[in-house]
Amino acid sequence: MTELRIAVLGVGMMGAFHVDALTKRIRGAKVTVISDYFPEKAKEVADAIGARVVDDPIEAINDAEVDAVLIASPGAVHDVQVNACLDAGKPVLCEKPLTTDIASSRVIVEKEKSLGKELIQVGFMRRFDPEYVALHQLIVSGGLGNPLMVHCTHRNPAVPDHFNSEFMIRDSVVHEVDVTRFLLGEEIVSVQVIKGVATSAAPAGTNDPMLVVFETESGRIVTDEIYVRTGVAYEVRTEVVGEQGSATIGLDQNLQVKRTDGSWGGQITPGFVERFGQAYDIELQRWVDAAKQGTIDGPGAWDGYAAVAVCEAGVKAVRSGRKEYVQLAGIALPVEEEPIPDIRAPDLIGDRP
Amino acid sequence: MTELRIAVLGVGMMGAFHVDALTKRIRGAKVTVISDYFPEKAKEVADAIGARVVDDPIEAINDAEVDAVLIASPGAVHDVQVNACLDAGKPVLCEKPLTTDIASSRVIVEKEKSLGKELIQVGFMRRFDPEYVALHQLIVSGGLGNPLMVHCTHRNPAVPDHFNSEFMIRDSVVHEVDVTRFLLGEEIVSVQVIKGVATSAAPAGTNDPMLVVFETESGRIVTDEIYVRTGVAYEVRTEVVGEQGSATIGLDQNLQVKRTDGSWGGQITPGFVERFGQAYDIELQRWVDAAKQGTIDGPGAWDGYAAVAVCEAGVKAVRSGRKEYVQLAGIALPVEEEPIPDIRAPDLIGDRP
Amino acid sequence: MTELRIAVLGVGMMGAFHVDALTKRIRGAKVTVISDYFPEKAKEVADAIGARVVDDPIEAINDAEVDAVLIASPGAVHDVQVNACLDAGKPVLCEKPLTTDIASSRVIVEKEKSLGKELIQVGFMRRFDPEYVALHQLIVSGGLGNPLMVHCTHRNPAVPDHFNSEFMIRDSVVHEVDVTRFLLGEEIVSVQVIKGVATSAAPAGTNDPMLVVFETESGRIVTDEIYVRTGVAYEVRTEVVGEQGSATIGLDQNLQVKRTDGSWGGQITPGFVERFGQAYDIELQRWVDAAKQGTIDGPGAWDGYAAVAVCEAGVKAVRSGRKEYVQLAGIALPVEEEPIPDIRAPDLIGDRP
Amino acid sequence: MTELRIAVLGVGMMGAFHVDALTKRIRGAKVTVISDYFPEKAKEVADAIGARVVDDPIEAINDAEVDAVLIASPGAVHDVQVNACLDAGKPVLCEKPLTTDIASSRVIVEKEKSLGKELIQVGFMRRFDPEYVALHQLIVSGGLGNPLMVHCTHRNPAVPDHFNSEFMIRDSVVHEVDVTRFLLGEEIVSVQVIKGVATSAAPAGTNDPMLVVFETESGRIVTDEIYVRTGVAYEVRTEVVGEQGSATIGLDQNLQVKRTDGSWGGQITPGFVERFGQAYDIELQRWVDAAKQGTIDGPGAWDGYAAVAVCEAGVKAVRSGRKEYVQLAGIALPVEEEPIPDIRAPDLIGDRP
Repeated sequence: MTELRIAVLGVGMMGAFHVDALTKRIRGAKVTVISDYFPEKAKEVADAIGARVVDDPIEAINDAEVDAVLIASPGAVHDVQVNACLDAGKPVLCEKPLTTDIASSRVIVEKEKSLGKELIQVGFMRRFDPEYVALHQLIVSGGLGNPLMVHCTHRNPAVPDHFNSEFMIRDSVVHEVDVTRFLLGEEIVSVQVIKGVATSAAPAGTNDPMLVVFETESGRIVTDEIYVRTGVAYEVRTEVVGEQGSATIGLDQNLQVKRTDGSWGGQITPGFVERFGQAYDIELQRWVDAAKQGTIDGPGAWDGYAAVAVCEAGVKAVRSGRKEYVQLAGIALPVEEEPIPDIRAPDLIGDRP
Repeated sequence: MTELRIAVLGVGMMGAFHVDALTKRIRGAKVTVISDYFPEKAKEVADAIGARVVDDPIEAINDAEVDAVLIASPGAVHDVQVNACLDAGKPVLCEKPLTTDIASSRVIVEKEKSLGKELIQVGFMRRFDPEYVALHQLIVSGGLGNPLMVHCTHRNPAVPDHFNSEFMIRDSVVHEVDVTRFLLGEEIVSVQVIKGVATSAAPAGTNDPMLVVFETESGRIVTDEIYVRTGVAYEVRTEVVGEQGSATIGLDQNLQVKRTDGSWGGQITPGFVERFGQAYDIELQRWVDAAKQGTIDGPGAWDGYAAVAVCEAGVKAVRSGRKEYVQLAGIALPVEEEPIPDIRAPDLIGDRP
Repeated sequence: MTELRIAVLGVGMMGAFHVDALTKRIRGAKVTVISDYFPEKAKEVADAIGARVVDDPIEAINDAEVDAVLIASPGAVHDVQVNACLDAGKPVLCEKPLTTDIASSRVIVEKEKSLGKELIQVGFMRRFDPEYVALHQLIVSGGLGNPLMVHCTHRNPAVPDHFNSEFMIRDSVVHEVDVTRFLLGEEIVSVQVIKGVATSAAPAGTNDPMLVVFETESGRIVTDEIYVRTGVAYEVRTEVVGEQGSATIGLDQNLQVKRTDGSWGGQITPGFVERFGQAYDIELQRWVDAAKQGTIDGPGAWDGYAAVAVCEAGVKAVRSGRKEYVQLAGIALPVEEEPIPDIRAPDLIGDRP
Repeated sequence: MTELRIAVLGVGMMGAFHVDALTKRIRGAKVTVISDYFPEKAKEVADAIGARVVDDPIEAINDAEVDAVLIASPGAVHDVQVNACLDAGKPVLCEKPLTTDIASSRVIVEKEKSLGKELIQVGFMRRFDPEYVALHQLIVSGGLGNPLMVHCTHRNPAVPDHFNSEFMIRDSVVHEVDVTRFLLGEEIVSVQVIKGVATSAAPAGTNDPMLVVFETESGRIVTDEIYVRTGVAYEVRTEVVGEQGSATIGLDQNLQVKRTDGSWGGQITPGFVERFGQAYDIELQRWVDAAKQGTIDGPGAWDGYAAVAVCEAGVKAVRSGRKEYVQLAGIALPVEEEPIPDIRAPDLIGDRP
């Protein structure tokens, strides 16, 4: 196989971004088929690169000129499309989420397992970012000793109004879910979401920012400040605090300027393309190379399933305001502590100054 | 009054540090009387600077050659000594804590109020640190817009074994309690302590590090990673995240070295003297200048009381594992949410990979 | 033309690096022919990628299956090979230097001009580095006001012994020659080399480090510290000082670590592949894309000629210890100041302490 | 002696700054006498602190209520005043320059030597700055191996018009003269001044910025970019490049802000008070403590003499455009290289692109 022939399902922002990369920057791949819910959108993208439009995504998957599938369609249809890829025995790179509920993700994990080979790669591209790779390597090599805590910061300059609190968990925090699992090499067992004061830029009812706290199997604590309407820039930082030292990535200090207003500094990365564009290319190239061998080279179906399960608990935690446990097959849950009764002082005299 | 004549009560590490500063670096002050539980220790310090020893601290406070008092004795005796200063009408700089329980702190606040002038200053020296002053100024001037979240990091290289989880709250986290109140200008209403994996350097039963979460009156969230056995250095960082930007202090980047092992970096501040030595001097000098006028120039009795109240809730939260409310006179508590029942999936099939 | 068929002349370190990129990372290109002075080396590289060996480089250039040529052979044979590419009308990406003397570079510039189209691109890959691109953009957009001075730092951890003072000018400083011309958009008119104390790691007679000072047409001053045996890492920094501010690139601060020895920092980029690997890929991809259109997309023959002329003056300056003027067609030289007689105090009395 | 009684000669900006420090921040000192060329200015300062005015500076030096003298008068009168202090046998802290010419400085050095004790301290306050102290300590401890090059940056936001090129050498570069001597522990033997394009903010005929190059006894090279009208801030950086690593101070990164315009950074130190205020206090306190013992604790007369000699050569180099040798007693000068004839290419054909 000289060139991997790929069907891209869904050519919204992410899908179009991937088509562009596969056409202009990735070696050994060719987008042959485009499918989208909006046929005219599919035609526009397909025409620009000389691909065919196949309206029905399942037909696109099964097309004779398709060796592998890239799914960038809305999450709600991932379940059907990923299953069709498994049925066709074709490698698939599925953008997050794997599916939109735990049960269907779980079924996919079992189904792929029964096939005896990994066909599903999930699009957690931070695992391909050079800074995360260096941080992971530092941890694995023992450079920090036993990792005890992780602090994540995930800030976007602005998002559309439909990014409500739950959407922020499923679409943004999901990256720190995978980062946690990648860096620490273990599952997340509980999620707590602490809501504070919301920015005035947030629609009513949306808690932006939020503080998300994960607890892992071994009891490590991970914090994630998720704040998607900072008005500032795209800031993604991760600090790992270990027994032998700590390490931080995402400091964004490449071009430093001193200005006539007496300030110093630089530009913060404006968006995910500037920050993770290279990671996306590495992800795609490695997937293309692996897909030619009929396998994957990145996070697999279980990683997608685990992320769905953690986000599900996260959404529950947004609603409940308390710690929620993650329901993941084969992962023992900790014994819950007895709740302590809430005793408040009845009559506090006097006034504050 | 040319020189303020000061009695120093307690000449352990902090007391001796203050005697040294008052003798060598502070203008307009003279330590005339030393008192300590161990008379020989008092004599040693007093002889070196030509001061008198007065064994009984209350006598020392009331000594005719004493204009003002610096209390650096153990917290348990602060209550009696501060009250004696109020009775004598003498200005007092009291190292934290004001007292060791909420009730006695509250009584002192009311007693000072009845005197009609402020005599008590509490030793929260971070308010005099140039970086915290700059951060406070940035917030107050509106440079960050409305502050939404604060993230604190408080790390010591090593501490004695008696620094258990509760001690860490009362002796270390107390600084972030005051920093929070200073930077945000409002009270803390609840504390939650999230324990994770402890460093192997901690004695059994001590949760080091811990993640402490404060909630303020207006609902702002403050996190504090307290980790006192890092083996690394003295790292005190604070990041304030506002609607219009964020700001961080404590980055410690003054001397930058590139080394032959291919690394770059510098020395982290080894201890509190190097980090806050200047702040202590500023604190002392401003207190000496104010005491000559019979007043204070720094955090007062209410600040000491509020810190005691928050730490009390913090210690409760260490024990309970849940959010505990702060009992502070005149501060309304939020209505508690209904606890959500803990429903776990009964039978999760299959195994993890 | 679907794939640009490329002959690579010279498969030493750089040539092999380019073959690897063209085969694994660059889209739309295929290495069809390899030529090297050592046939067995050529065969080894060619066999690994399924290319043919053509021993004679001129035959390789004229091969029917070759659309474009990448020259990574020793500088001494560039003249003949580049001329052959011009004769064949084939696009060529020539690693620096264009040729090894001013006269032959000048002839090539004129010869290409007579062809009426640009076929020659010279391998100054820093122009494709995102940080240099950002710095250039900042200057061009007026973000620094009129640029007044530029300070460059060029440090390698170690080099072979044949890197003597002249070689350091021709092989290392040549990059800052091009960076200066790229950032300031004007020619260099003089070079001075100030030799100081040499590192004990340098062979006898080699001045490492040296301070190189360029003067541009408009009189701007550019300093370059060239130090190729630091034992530290690959450090390439450039600071531009303008009327409205200054800017620095190359600060290398992506992964920051705090260590148990009380230090903070990170890893400095170990070598040029880590620092400029991405720039090389961008350079190659853009050249491949342009070559398909029969043109170039990067520094051209004049840039190669100017670099040769400046390095020639630099080598003269190493020998003479004084400012040497650059001989470049059409560039007016400044009027030399009268030398000032050297008057030294005849009899200085007394001793130093 | 409980309090050192000090006469301050000259209460312009620096003198008034010192009076303020001696009165408010320095322990064990008292300004008893003020003298200034403008009696009303002297009276104003003296009245504010309860000191006496003595119009004649020599009378002030010899006043019975004066134990030590601080000279902050114009440089032109330093010679007479310092000599009077020596004659009176009183310790003196003399702001730079020691005197305005080499010969008179040399005479003072010899005269003090004949007294057999050091009475003169010169106001090079950077030696008391914690960052310079740390850098010096790093060098002395061998942390960088043998120092090979030093790069200094000295930038002011703005200065009055009388800061012409020569004034910049005598008043600004003089600090790097002392820093070089302090850090490297050896004398400077030559100075070269390379003028480039001047900022449009500079008056006609003033070369701002300039690049100053020092050569030390052992042949080390030191560069100093002096640029006093940046419009930006007060930036003083020093990088020492050694055989085993390099180190930089002056990075100014304590408060880091991310802003809504997508930039990050902080405030650069606005002026010398903010940057070196602490160093001035340490300098004064240590001088006061030493003066009580009749000695000095900082740079002495030879340091003042050496600085005068280097600045003299620097001013000559501004005029000549070439390397000028420093005339310092007992310091051997290097043998000058033969000048190389200036051969330019006679007829360069063709045009630039």
